[in-house]
Amino acid sequence: MGDMAETYKLVLLRHGQSEWNKENLFTGWVDVPLSDQGREEAVRGGALLKERGILPDVVHTSLLRRAMNTANLALDEADRLWIPVKRNWRLNERHYGDLQGKDKAEVRDKYGEEQFMQWRRSYDVPPPSLDDDSEFSQAHDPRYADVEDAPRTECLKDVLERMLPYWHEGVKPDLATGKTVLVAAHGNSLRALVKHLDGIADEDISGLNIPTGIPLYYELDENYKPVKPGEYLDPDAAADAIQAVANQGKK
Amino acid sequence: MGDMAETYKLVLLRHGQSEWNKENLFTGWVDVPLSDQGREEAVRGGALLKERGILPDVVHTSLLRRAMNTANLALDEADRLWIPVKRNWRLNERHYGDLQGKDKAEVRDKYGEEQFMQWRRSYDVPPPSLDDDSEFSQAHDPRYADVEDAPRTECLKDVLERMLPYWHEGVKPDLATGKTVLVAAHGNSLRALVKHLDGIADEDISGLNIPTGIPLYYELDENYKPVKPGEYLDPDAAADAIQAVANQGKK
Repeated sequence: MGDMAETYKLVLLRHGQSEWNKENLFTGWVDVPLSDQGREEAVRGGALLKERGILPDVVHTSLLRRAMNTANLALDEADRLWIPVKRNWRLNERHYGDLQGKDKAEVRDKYGEEQFMQWRRSYDVPPPSLDDDSEFSQAHDPRYADVEDAPRTECLKDVLERMLPYWHEGVKPDLATGKTVLVAAHGNSLRALVKHLDGIADEDISGLNIPTGIPLYYELDENYKPVKPGEYLDPDAAADAIQAVANQGKK
Repeated sequence: MGDMAETYKLVLLRHGQSEWNKENLFTGWVDVPLSDQGREEAVRGGALLKERGILPDVVHTSLLRRAMNTANLALDEADRLWIPVKRNWRLNERHYGDLQGKDKAEVRDKYGEEQFMQWRRSYDVPPPSLDDDSEFSQAHDPRYADVEDAPRTECLKDVLERMLPYWHEGVKPDLATGKTVLVAAHGNSLRALVKHLDGIADEDISGLNIPTGIPLYYELDENYKPVKPGEYLDPDAAADAIQAVANQGKK
């Protein structure tokens, strides 16, 4: 390859604000809907794709409605709702274990800043497991009925390990056919993917925040490695949003 | 088979009101969005599915956004947005040829009631072909780039003939695995399918109207024939809506 015209084209899109993002609750696998702001972000993401002429030929999503609806709203805005759709639990948000449904600020107050930041940002320390009887558990959710050993909690390392098989077996084959591929997913499943693509070290990944609703565009070489840094299609808004995410959990 | 528990389960859903339904224009393959009322109809359709516990395992849609968004809104309401999605142009609305974009009442006034009703309701008389240069043509739409001999006009007989291969090769294999299958499509592609399922004669099909947004539930035997008449999940609303469709084109 080498010719720019022959690079693989990948667009990552983190879902817009959800109702629980707004309320500052740990969400994880709880299937919370987008807020009105989140829906607007998704439409704006689609408009950015259309403006730049980066038109997805196929979309991959998680099984969570905030990512699925973000994809649907963005693609409808970009006149691409008709492209093939593929969904997989491996693109889901990190399972937040026993923290799911809990207020972020309350968790920080109760457990202290150090434990709070370890659960949020360490690479390999998961929160306590979520009990299957919890109202916030997905143990009995039919969408995961065929998933063997579905997680009850995860750290980012766990997310990377369960996401990568789908990257290799689900997404790369579509890229290889020359399709422009949209992956609509979550803060942590996309951080895991960007860690893999950009070769970010375990100890550096805590500094990576991906803003919501702003398409992140990669051109990849024949080894599926970026030929240049990933590009947010609205760089100014991305910079502002990254700062806002970094402030999460602060009252 | 014969045991009720082993019937194949099929749900047909005609999209809710579109912006052009509201304005009484011929739509066909023009990719018009749902109206607010149409979006509400779709959500109500999903609520009916959920209330009855008729939960789709897979959804098939046309390539037109009014059907895709109807499916998305209904499935989200029924907590089933995560199921596999399959799309095919063969489920599209009838291509309305040169009538696309024209006001129904004006066409009737210009060509007379007889010609108007022949174009609307005859089984085998298509309207004049739509010119590829028309603003209402899909000749250059990328979603149909791989469709050989894409139609420039269609009568209902044409719709049946291009829809049936997808019924046989796309939908029936999903039914055969025991899945509950949702087909989200259009007035005429669904009339064609119901004609096939119920064995309606060519001369009787003009009397069949399918209301928007109300799931039509079939249980099929091992030969994919209904074991009893299709059932609208809100029979009273269906009866009212069928009357309203019959009044279309009247000022």
